[in-house]
Amino acid sequence: MPVETKKISLDVLAKLAEGELSGNTKTEVTGFAPLETAGPGDISFLVKAGQVEKLADFKGSAVIVPMAIEVADVPLIRVQDPYLAAAKIHSLLLERPFVAKGVHERAWVGTDTKIPGEITVAPMASIGERVILGERVSIESGAVIGDEVQIGADTVIKANVTIGERCIVGSRVTIHSGTVLGSDGYGYATDKRGFHTKRPQVGIVQVDDDVEIGANVCIDRAAYGVTHIKSGSKIDNLVQIAHNVEVGENCLLVSQVGISGSTTLGRNVVLGGQAGLTGHITLGDGVMVGAQSGVHNNQKAGITVGGSPALPIKTFVRAAIQYGKLPQMARDLRKMKKEIAEFKEDK
Amino acid sequence: MPVETKKISLDVLAKLAEGELSGNTKTEVTGFAPLETAGPGDISFLVKAGQVEKLADFKGSAVIVPMAIEVADVPLIRVQDPYLAAAKIHSLLLERPFVAKGVHERAWVGTDTKIPGEITVAPMASIGERVILGERVSIESGAVIGDEVQIGADTVIKANVTIGERCIVGSRVTIHSGTVLGSDGYGYATDKRGFHTKRPQVGIVQVDDDVEIGANVCIDRAAYGVTHIKSGSKIDNLVQIAHNVEVGENCLLVSQVGISGSTTLGRNVVLGGQAGLTGHITLGDGVMVGAQSGVHNNQKAGITVGGSPALPIKTFVRAAIQYGKLPQMARDLRKMKKEIAEFKEDK
Amino acid sequence: MPVETKKISLDVLAKLAEGELSGNTKTEVTGFAPLETAGPGDISFLVKAGQVEKLADFKGSAVIVPMAIEVADVPLIRVQDPYLAAAKIHSLLLERPFVAKGVHERAWVGTDTKIPGEITVAPMASIGERVILGERVSIESGAVIGDEVQIGADTVIKANVTIGERCIVGSRVTIHSGTVLGSDGYGYATDKRGFHTKRPQVGIVQVDDDVEIGANVCIDRAAYGVTHIKSGSKIDNLVQIAHNVEVGENCLLVSQVGISGSTTLGRNVVLGGQAGLTGHITLGDGVMVGAQSGVHNNQKAGITVGGSPALPIKTFVRAAIQYGKLPQMARDLRKMKKEIAEFKEDK
Repeated sequence: MPVETKKISLDVLAKLAEGELSGNTKTEVTGFAPLETAGPGDISFLVKAGQVEKLADFKGSAVIVPMAIEVADVPLIRVQDPYLAAAKIHSLLLERPFVAKGVHERAWVGTDTKIPGEITVAPMASIGERVILGERVSIESGAVIGDEVQIGADTVIKANVTIGERCIVGSRVTIHSGTVLGSDGYGYATDKRGFHTKRPQVGIVQVDDDVEIGANVCIDRAAYGVTHIKSGSKIDNLVQIAHNVEVGENCLLVSQVGISGSTTLGRNVVLGGQAGLTGHITLGDGVMVGAQSGVHNNQKAGITVGGSPALPIKTFVRAAIQYGKLPQMARDLRKMKKEIAEFKEDK
Repeated sequence: MPVETKKISLDVLAKLAEGELSGNTKTEVTGFAPLETAGPGDISFLVKAGQVEKLADFKGSAVIVPMAIEVADVPLIRVQDPYLAAAKIHSLLLERPFVAKGVHERAWVGTDTKIPGEITVAPMASIGERVILGERVSIESGAVIGDEVQIGADTVIKANVTIGERCIVGSRVTIHSGTVLGSDGYGYATDKRGFHTKRPQVGIVQVDDDVEIGANVCIDRAAYGVTHIKSGSKIDNLVQIAHNVEVGENCLLVSQVGISGSTTLGRNVVLGGQAGLTGHITLGDGVMVGAQSGVHNNQKAGITVGGSPALPIKTFVRAAIQYGKLPQMARDLRKMKKEIAEFKEDK
Repeated sequence: MPVETKKISLDVLAKLAEGELSGNTKTEVTGFAPLETAGPGDISFLVKAGQVEKLADFKGSAVIVPMAIEVADVPLIRVQDPYLAAAKIHSLLLERPFVAKGVHERAWVGTDTKIPGEITVAPMASIGERVILGERVSIESGAVIGDEVQIGADTVIKANVTIGERCIVGSRVTIHSGTVLGSDGYGYATDKRGFHTKRPQVGIVQVDDDVEIGANVCIDRAAYGVTHIKSGSKIDNLVQIAHNVEVGENCLLVSQVGISGSTTLGRNVVLGGQAGLTGHITLGDGVMVGAQSGVHNNQKAGITVGGSPALPIKTFVRAAIQYGKLPQMARDLRKMKKEIAEFKEDK
């Protein structure tokens, strides 16, 4: 069953996308679909002007295109960045008023937790004591919200999420299923016999506004203070964030990344899938780390690194090319050694 | 407490395993155990004919052996592949009729979800609205089944699994605990200021028949269309499968593998543990990827690759051997440089 | 809201930490805080004697210091290992009597499961049949405990944990949210057509005393017998432990480590983050494995390895340094080849 949509005129959408209209501006669209599958009422998008021939078979009602395409047989919204415009327009078409279902009779809410006017708490969700919930929060089945947690307005906590006591989650945050916020940080002191004594982990996790966190992610609470995910950052599935890490604004952490304790990321840092960062380092604004890389040192703003241990990306790419040639290099070396030895004998 | 078993005669088991009987074919077995711990009533198995001396101390009732072993002091089932025969025979011995416990009073089922005649839904499970359930489905405690999900017959959903709305799961599928099907794909469009706008993820996950999915796995729903796990594939724990990935029939994805968006695997692809695949590539039928490898390019059917970035496996193995010798190679190079410089001076 | 504390005199704390008092030994402390944020009533700690100037601005009531610091303006507990002493003292200050809340009316407990005198089972927790629970066990919301599980005294099962049937968990164990104990091991036998037949996984997981297991960890049950985590080991988040693995006493497994089937670790083995171990190998006591390493062979006690495939750590570090220089080495080789060819011509 397709997701229901609503009817919006092209000029409203063009304004949202900061674009220009071409063709019948009275056109109204009701849905969003890829070029190939769009039908009547659908708006679609084309990223590259060079692929304009793709519009020939188009069966939808309008297309978002790059500025270079000026006119076509179908109404157009011409924009600087069709990809971004499509995301905004599709989101608007899907937007629905919040439906407050209240607290389901099969959910549990602890004492001294005030329920806002508009909220949805699904069956089998469990909310602790003295929890502070914003308006239009949605808490799905199986989610467990610890005592004294704070959750901002319009935040969605998906099924089977766990948020530990005292953690703070901002507004317009989405946390996907199975994710754990506020598990204990991994900290032990080891004695001479090799026994490990747990170092108490008494801090919290703070997630700021407009963050999205994928499924089965782990974010540990700080030893003291705060493990901090700043506004606008997007975290993919199965990412590990250790205690006292700070993730700056608008970072992208791709799936299965691991960040060790007390490491700090600036703004707009991008970590490729399965990359690992050691503890107590700082990555400046805009640093990019290749997939599967291992970063052991501070990285200056704007730099891109790759490899394990990580190198500047160009060095890594060139070295990686040579890696496969190592057996040939070894053979060449042996041959040259022999040749040099022969020269010496000849003398 | 050991798992209860039943009594089956060797000729039934030999037929199942496409094997030949040797010794007392009237023997009945009730259980399955390794050679070392088998007791009366147990059948066991021996993989290598060369280890036939292991049968000397055997205390069980029958043994599955390779064809090369023709006779012994104990009844034998002689087969081409003892490993496979053992799996089939052990499974049959453990097979029990489905016990339909119905929907537990502490479970929740949404409106317009029809409950089949034979089903087990455990306490604290939560099933959404308009869900379609096959016969003999088992849904364990804490599992959350979203609205309009479809689940085929004889499928087992273990404790604390989450299946997002509209996803489709086939028959005879097992999904282990903590796994999430249908979390949003990781897709954003970034504006010039570095802010990320979410691209709506409106597709689904489809899991075909006879698939097994391990614990704490994440399979994201497609942006549009379907993230598709085809029949017979087996996925280990903590695997990440991004939006719009297609996993062909009978693939094996070992633990902690990560597959980026829109990548396609053919049939019988094997991905070693912690391997990572970039997005939008295709791996042909039977491709094998070594553990911890990073695959960035299409791979032709039948190829085996290793390393990060991945190389043909022989190249990788030879290069990896040289890697540890790099310091020596560097010293050799320096020495030869000097020697060549001396030759030049001599001239 | 800060965690509540209690009042303890310095001499009690000094005894616990096997330390010596300096200054007003009648001082009582109520809390623990880092040097920078400590206030009246707080005890803090300083790891390095060379940083004694940090005590100048200290606003708390006492400090744990290394022996080399003999006196200061504030009462001191002088110890061999301030880090360890701090962990012990902080833990004692946080220790509270167990508050037995009993089984919540919204939790579910199966038949023939005896509830001990002192226990806390939170709403939405689900406990199976014939489960054996120790005194002062705490089971949080959404946790699912399978039939015939055994859990020792003073163990904490956090929210949304799943423990499969028949598994055994010791005393003073903590298992963090989302973790799965007792999912099926990943074992299949493949026939000639490429179809996989499941090998039944009928063993269990056994976790001994004083183990801590992080969030979203997976520990598979043994094919037969036991997957065994021995006493005092500490496992970080998102770790994968396959069937029939044995983890020795007091091991440290850092986040996202993966251990393949039937591998055995001795005592006090340390596996760095994202390291992977192949199956059926043995790591001796005290082996250390670097982050992101891939270990394919047995390792003798006391050895440290790094890299994928893993090498002795010194070899790996030296090779990794040369790796970035590979393009220069390749250029040098080409040049020398040419020079040698010229010599030959000259002769």
